[in-house]
Amino acid sequence: MDLYFSPLACSMATRVALYESDTQANYIYVNRLAKEVEDGSDYYAVNGMGQVPLLRTDSGEELTETAAVLQYIADLRPESGPAPKSGMERYRLQQWLNFITTELHKAVFYPQFSPDSNDGAKAFALQLTEKRFDHLDKHLTGREFLLDRFTVADAYLGTVLGWTRPVGIDLGKWPALKDYFTRMRQRPSFARATAEEFALYEAEQERAGAA
Amino acid sequence: MDLYFSPLACSMATRVALYESDTQANYIYVNRLAKEVEDGSDYYAVNGMGQVPLLRTDSGEELTETAAVLQYIADLRPESGPAPKSGMERYRLQQWLNFITTELHKAVFYPQFSPDSNDGAKAFALQLTEKRFDHLDKHLTGREFLLDRFTVADAYLGTVLGWTRPVGIDLGKWPALKDYFTRMRQRPSFARATAEEFALYEAEQERAGAA
Repeated sequence: MDLYFSPLACSMATRVALYESDTQANYIYVNRLAKEVEDGSDYYAVNGMGQVPLLRTDSGEELTETAAVLQYIADLRPESGPAPKSGMERYRLQQWLNFITTELHKAVFYPQFSPDSNDGAKAFALQLTEKRFDHLDKHLTGREFLLDRFTVADAYLGTVLGWTRPVGIDLGKWPALKDYFTRMRQRPSFARATAEEFALYEAEQERAGAA
Repeated sequence: MDLYFSPLACSMATRVALYESDTQANYIYVNRLAKEVEDGSDYYAVNGMGQVPLLRTDSGEELTETAAVLQYIADLRPESGPAPKSGMERYRLQQWLNFITTELHKAVFYPQFSPDSNDGAKAFALQLTEKRFDHLDKHLTGREFLLDRFTVADAYLGTVLGWTRPVGIDLGKWPALKDYFTRMRQRPSFARATAEEFALYEAEQERAGAA
């Protein structure tokens, strides 16, 4: 199984899910801005949208979009994996995955990081934060995870919360959310993924600075 | 089962899914901008995010987020419903649902319709259209649906394509996508939902004009 990823991008959620379910994969680095694979080839030839993650299964099927990839990975361990198998809890997982992917990832953060963005787009996106983080803070008050145990939705939310610092959002306003993020960072799978990808991110920044 | 909806909003995809799977529901009107339910009550008391759709099942469970609600509805008819039941085709469905909800609904269209948006946000969002519609046009060339038969992803994509005209996007540049939208509009479930919600939308506009 191959996972195309960029350091600290949303693909980190898939890495966390793979570590959580003890599943091996080849991690293939993609330069997020240059859209270049680690062997120097054009990433658009792999994924026409140029986005990570892209997962290539052992049978050669290619799957994109974090919410789909995370569910695929979790289901590789149907009994013990980081997703409810079926029933209302499965729809609840999909609800949270969709909330994170639309309301947080795409609405709040994407315009902050896109090289084609502008000040108006960044400001509009940033003012969406409060209502969404209020909603999460309320839900997480008295809860350890989004559902009743760790799931791939937590892998995704933890990854996205890692983007608050570079954007300048102070989680202190949302104590339950801040505590949740602290717990995620202490979780072995998440701590390992973050340390590994942060090192790769720093190396990427250094190369960009030297160029 | 209750469905909270606003005319021609993304909740129309759920109406189409309900018609396709021949499932009865109570449709409860929500004024999108005033966040007011048809009985005059505050919609925020129902859904803290103020968003439609919200589905209340017969057992009283409340589910939000279109991608989750659509899968729930489709699975009510596990053998004949508008979704692959399992396997790689199910992940493929989730991939397309996630593409539509992030890349189209939230990235391109949300900033066009939000009352808090600005010119910069609208311009940034609009220039995302070409790459995403190119991707869809390529995929739909030679295909009738997103997957190999009608699924809830088509209900969602058809609903979102209905927003191109008010935004001023001319589908003529993407012939396969344009033909696809024509086929969707001719599909009985979609034609019925559109006609019903368009009438409600016009009545809403008239009331707003009179106020």
